Amino acid sequence: MPQSIQPAVVGATGYAGFELARLLFRHPKVKKPVLFTRDGEGGGPVRLDDIYPHISGNGASPLEPFRWEALRNKGVDVLFLATPHEVSREWVPEAIRQGVRVIDLSGAWRLITPAYREVYGFHDQDAAAADKLSARAVYGIPELHRTDLADAALVANAGCYATSIILALAPLVRAGLVDLAHGVICDSKSGVSGAGKQPTQKTHFVEVAENLSAYSLFSHRHTGEILEQLGLTPEQLIFTPHLLPIPRGILSTIYVRLNSAMQPVQIEDCLRKFYAGSPWVRIFDRGKLPQIQYSLHTNYCDIGFALAADGKRLVMVSCLDNLMKGAAGQAVQNMNLIFGWNEEEGLK
Amino acid sequence: MPQSIQPAVVGATGYAGFELARLLFRHPKVKKPVLFTRDGEGGGPVRLDDIYPHISGNGASPLEPFRWEALRNKGVDVLFLATPHEVSREWVPEAIRQGVRVIDLSGAWRLITPAYREVYGFHDQDAAAADKLSARAVYGIPELHRTDLADAALVANAGCYATSIILALAPLVRAGLVDLAHGVICDSKSGVSGAGKQPTQKTHFVEVAENLSAYSLFSHRHTGEILEQLGLTPEQLIFTPHLLPIPRGILSTIYVRLNSAMQPVQIEDCLRKFYAGSPWVRIFDRGKLPQIQYSLHTNYCDIGFALAADGKRLVMVSCLDNLMKGAAGQAVQNMNLIFGWNEEEGLK
Amino acid sequence: MPQSIQPAVVGATGYAGFELARLLFRHPKVKKPVLFTRDGEGGGPVRLDDIYPHISGNGASPLEPFRWEALRNKGVDVLFLATPHEVSREWVPEAIRQGVRVIDLSGAWRLITPAYREVYGFHDQDAAAADKLSARAVYGIPELHRTDLADAALVANAGCYATSIILALAPLVRAGLVDLAHGVICDSKSGVSGAGKQPTQKTHFVEVAENLSAYSLFSHRHTGEILEQLGLTPEQLIFTPHLLPIPRGILSTIYVRLNSAMQPVQIEDCLRKFYAGSPWVRIFDRGKLPQIQYSLHTNYCDIGFALAADGKRLVMVSCLDNLMKGAAGQAVQNMNLIFGWNEEEGLK
Amino acid sequence: MPQSIQPAVVGATGYAGFELARLLFRHPKVKKPVLFTRDGEGGGPVRLDDIYPHISGNGASPLEPFRWEALRNKGVDVLFLATPHEVSREWVPEAIRQGVRVIDLSGAWRLITPAYREVYGFHDQDAAAADKLSARAVYGIPELHRTDLADAALVANAGCYATSIILALAPLVRAGLVDLAHGVICDSKSGVSGAGKQPTQKTHFVEVAENLSAYSLFSHRHTGEILEQLGLTPEQLIFTPHLLPIPRGILSTIYVRLNSAMQPVQIEDCLRKFYAGSPWVRIFDRGKLPQIQYSLHTNYCDIGFALAADGKRLVMVSCLDNLMKGAAGQAVQNMNLIFGWNEEEGLK
Repeated sequence: MPQSIQPAVVGATGYAGFELARLLFRHPKVKKPVLFTRDGEGGGPVRLDDIYPHISGNGASPLEPFRWEALRNKGVDVLFLATPHEVSREWVPEAIRQGVRVIDLSGAWRLITPAYREVYGFHDQDAAAADKLSARAVYGIPELHRTDLADAALVANAGCYATSIILALAPLVRAGLVDLAHGVICDSKSGVSGAGKQPTQKTHFVEVAENLSAYSLFSHRHTGEILEQLGLTPEQLIFTPHLLPIPRGILSTIYVRLNSAMQPVQIEDCLRKFYAGSPWVRIFDRGKLPQIQYSLHTNYCDIGFALAADGKRLVMVSCLDNLMKGAAGQAVQNMNLIFGWNEEEGLK
Repeated sequence: MPQSIQPAVVGATGYAGFELARLLFRHPKVKKPVLFTRDGEGGGPVRLDDIYPHISGNGASPLEPFRWEALRNKGVDVLFLATPHEVSREWVPEAIRQGVRVIDLSGAWRLITPAYREVYGFHDQDAAAADKLSARAVYGIPELHRTDLADAALVANAGCYATSIILALAPLVRAGLVDLAHGVICDSKSGVSGAGKQPTQKTHFVEVAENLSAYSLFSHRHTGEILEQLGLTPEQLIFTPHLLPIPRGILSTIYVRLNSAMQPVQIEDCLRKFYAGSPWVRIFDRGKLPQIQYSLHTNYCDIGFALAADGKRLVMVSCLDNLMKGAAGQAVQNMNLIFGWNEEEGLK
Repeated sequence: MPQSIQPAVVGATGYAGFELARLLFRHPKVKKPVLFTRDGEGGGPVRLDDIYPHISGNGASPLEPFRWEALRNKGVDVLFLATPHEVSREWVPEAIRQGVRVIDLSGAWRLITPAYREVYGFHDQDAAAADKLSARAVYGIPELHRTDLADAALVANAGCYATSIILALAPLVRAGLVDLAHGVICDSKSGVSGAGKQPTQKTHFVEVAENLSAYSLFSHRHTGEILEQLGLTPEQLIFTPHLLPIPRGILSTIYVRLNSAMQPVQIEDCLRKFYAGSPWVRIFDRGKLPQIQYSLHTNYCDIGFALAADGKRLVMVSCLDNLMKGAAGQAVQNMNLIFGWNEEEGLK
Repeated sequence: MPQSIQPAVVGATGYAGFELARLLFRHPKVKKPVLFTRDGEGGGPVRLDDIYPHISGNGASPLEPFRWEALRNKGVDVLFLATPHEVSREWVPEAIRQGVRVIDLSGAWRLITPAYREVYGFHDQDAAAADKLSARAVYGIPELHRTDLADAALVANAGCYATSIILALAPLVRAGLVDLAHGVICDSKSGVSGAGKQPTQKTHFVEVAENLSAYSLFSHRHTGEILEQLGLTPEQLIFTPHLLPIPRGILSTIYVRLNSAMQPVQIEDCLRKFYAGSPWVRIFDRGKLPQIQYSLHTNYCDIGFALAADGKRLVMVSCLDNLMKGAAGQAVQNMNLIFGWNEEEGLK
């Protein structure tokens, strides 16, 4: 178990990258993170507190342009990429070659199935090598891949929507309780920070406030990772994201049919057993439901449910903070497991 | 066709009642409405602009305690009740006896099936008479009951959630296109004014802002009216309401399976044909979806959809303003039809 | 008095321009407006309902690129410019030459004093002519310039902040009641639509929600018009704008010292007398204060006040909807006066 | 320096009390807090996580009815009162008699001047004793009363608005730089949690969202503490609070005239020197202004300013989180100083 490792972050000026930098500054097992910017981000700020004045003290950290030499010179042990998908897709092979562990917050390395990956439109220079690396990447939901994460070279940090859905469904699906042929419906609602910091018409305050909209029906990029992690076929899942007029937080309402009639206590038991030993998933007592506000600014994924009188129609509600358990917090949790630390380290 | 009728409103100090009063003040075919308060509403305001300073001019209208004599003395032709369910349940029979038409915005008279009505816990003095009157009440969605509304004595104005769901589903269900046995899922999200003006912990700003919560799973009162109007059994429907951090607006995301594979153009045609001649339903071109902001402060119900590549899994999105098409606007639309006027009158 | 005039709008895709287009479509005295786009706005939409799906019916209006010939061919009588300042500065002289009346919603022609105009950084080709035209332009607050507006060739529609402040202060300042030497402080708060539709970091939902910020201290462009209209020197005014986490609405809190101790009733009288005959200013009874919500979606400017026990320290509160009385509504009110119509026409 | 002290909280179910309980649970120097409820709070919850499900683990703490015996039996060293003013006014003398230190978050003991205290309408049983105790209470802004706090028996935790204003003004006022005779204007804006958890019409989501309102002009209760702490007369201060549509955070915009013209660097120096050694006040570089979002969920008070070209008219902007530096965080900071600990303890 290393005494203290050196992390680096590319993209600390975005919402998830900034949250990550803040977590790393306070993490007791790691050195002060090196903060890189990408070329093309503009002349940009030279210090993190130029854009986030509230990160006083640590904010004085200079941001420096990313260079492979700098990575070596600083002795970086683990590189966090909070970068666009295509950047991560291009950079990760080189980082791995250089022996640096990577935790990638983009969608670049989450998918094994080439068809699902098509939605990202990657143009890999060496497609065979990229496929091979894709297969080696550990999908970064610690509750499902704890063992594989130990000493992993590349972690593909899970998508925010996908985390909320997969964590809710995995226990029941893996126990074979869900009638998959009947179809699974995931109606998800997310705060705006999930759409990134780049100003667009879609994220203009006036367009979002006092509004709710559904988007990317039958076509959202997170669909592939949900299918792969839960072992579903595309016909077995409908995933509908919505844009909420709040800065952060996700609530997914999930509808499944059970193979046979069950009691609420059985559902609750199944969930509790699955997540025994998982400090960052909270199962709500039957009859109580999570709300977005409960998990804000924490690394928890909160899961509750209601079962119809017939014992077969089940509605699950899953909440998390998209910048924490849905991005930066989960990235730190993944790092903790890579290095053999307690997975709560730096997240309390 | 009457030249000018005299409306009265009980409950004009609540959100829906106030919206209704505003519409009636501007309606070209009706006299200035009489505004009643109920005993027990407290000493309360004596003028509408004491609580809503922005309704200047008309706001000077005095509110007077409701009395049956006053109803007669003022020559009231149509009485709007924006009152609690139990009050409407008690008052309507007497109003009908007195020959006054009633448009009731509560849930008191919407349900024919006694079992569904149980959730309201009514204690009718003359249960048989109440059952009979329930059966006579016209369910107040004009697009479905236009003929019955002509000259109706009692209109049970539809629920806000129910309106958004029924209008989206009725065309396809009535055309026999929906696989009802597979089940219909309605995931609805509503602004806070739907919860009424009474301050409660649930509607406190701090509890709602930056939050989203699901509530009343498998138990919301609007379930019965959706079942009755669409001809579904309780096992065929899941309806999940959520509380949005916005003042007004509803978006329902509706999931159905079609009996056979269809093309998007066929779905669009079915919807457009059904609502030809219905000025207050807007069908969105396939590929476009309504958002809450589009229907705010209007009487429109906006309907769009997306169809999976298999042609069988259909997601519908339905939006309306819960105080307009979901309450006061629809009440005025119903009034227009009772009296044989154009159903857009007073609503443009 | 013309029977029906032909209006045109440049910039109907922005927030103020769209509000204006909606008002003109419903205005009983004008023909359907011609909607122009500027070159450089991008390929852009070809119909207004491509961006605002809720303007059904009228939204089908095609947007066409602005051309001087088109202006003539369509017989445009009055041209509304909802364009950037520099565009308005350049186009207005040509429009005036062509005999078309102009109502300019930008800041280009509001200021007579060249020094105040410097903050806009104009590069007039013919500076002398521009100065002369600046002097001819009527400042578009109808309550102060009603007479000059009759038959005006060029109206410089007032700024949103400026309108809320000038309307509150003008009665007392003109009556000589205010101790100007002591200084006037205007602490204003505005919703985000005032910052325009262009997406920027500053108007990103996540930056605005749950936040409040002051900006442009001692340097906001509206300062000049407030000084000129109230006859103040720069040393006599502090104006501090703040960005509110709401889509629309302005509240200005204004602090002045009176020359001699007064009674609240005297203040109220002064205000009421000044605005007798002004239908779009509402004076609140002493002891009551306007709130932003009261004037939203209306053309009212609401004014209230509180007076200290000493009778000399006065706090005024002024509210309006920045897209209505602060922009499009006031533009229509100005148009009504140009053509000799009732100033409420098309605004109720 | 005590090794570990036993705190207790009355009122942990309110917003400030809950924030306080959370801070105490994580504080390294104190034992797990005893949580009391008051009689009359209703049958109420028996565990904190019944109302705040997100305080998992610690939330399981039972709430017990307040009894003086319980205070003794549990060996409580310091009692935090997050209770209504009148309750604090009644209970504190008894707690002091019993030798328990008190940190009172209400306004009950903040004011020395009886006339200022009148706005609370207390009915002290022993008025003389109450006056004496009032005089002994230390006003709980640590940056101003650090020495007096050491070993204090009773701390009157400062008001949220008052803290934001006093911290901004104290350095300049104490240095004699401010022209007090000219008057000081404090235009403050606060999130809704400052109004407490009790549901009222004023805090209903629909009344607050999309709105801004000024209230309590010339009459807000915090006025007295501002006057006393800054040494002003009532005629020298105008304090206007406004209700913002956000859950938490305060921004105060403060207007003063300086006695003589100064340079920005001199203002900045004055502030920085005053707060050297004060870790919870951040002075912003001249030219930069704090925003509410920067201090949310922290114990910082952020202070910035802009100076007019004349060097005499100064606008200060002061921000804090009303539940942290404005209530619970400051209470913990006060506790740290009472017991001689580092004032950052438990607040990072």
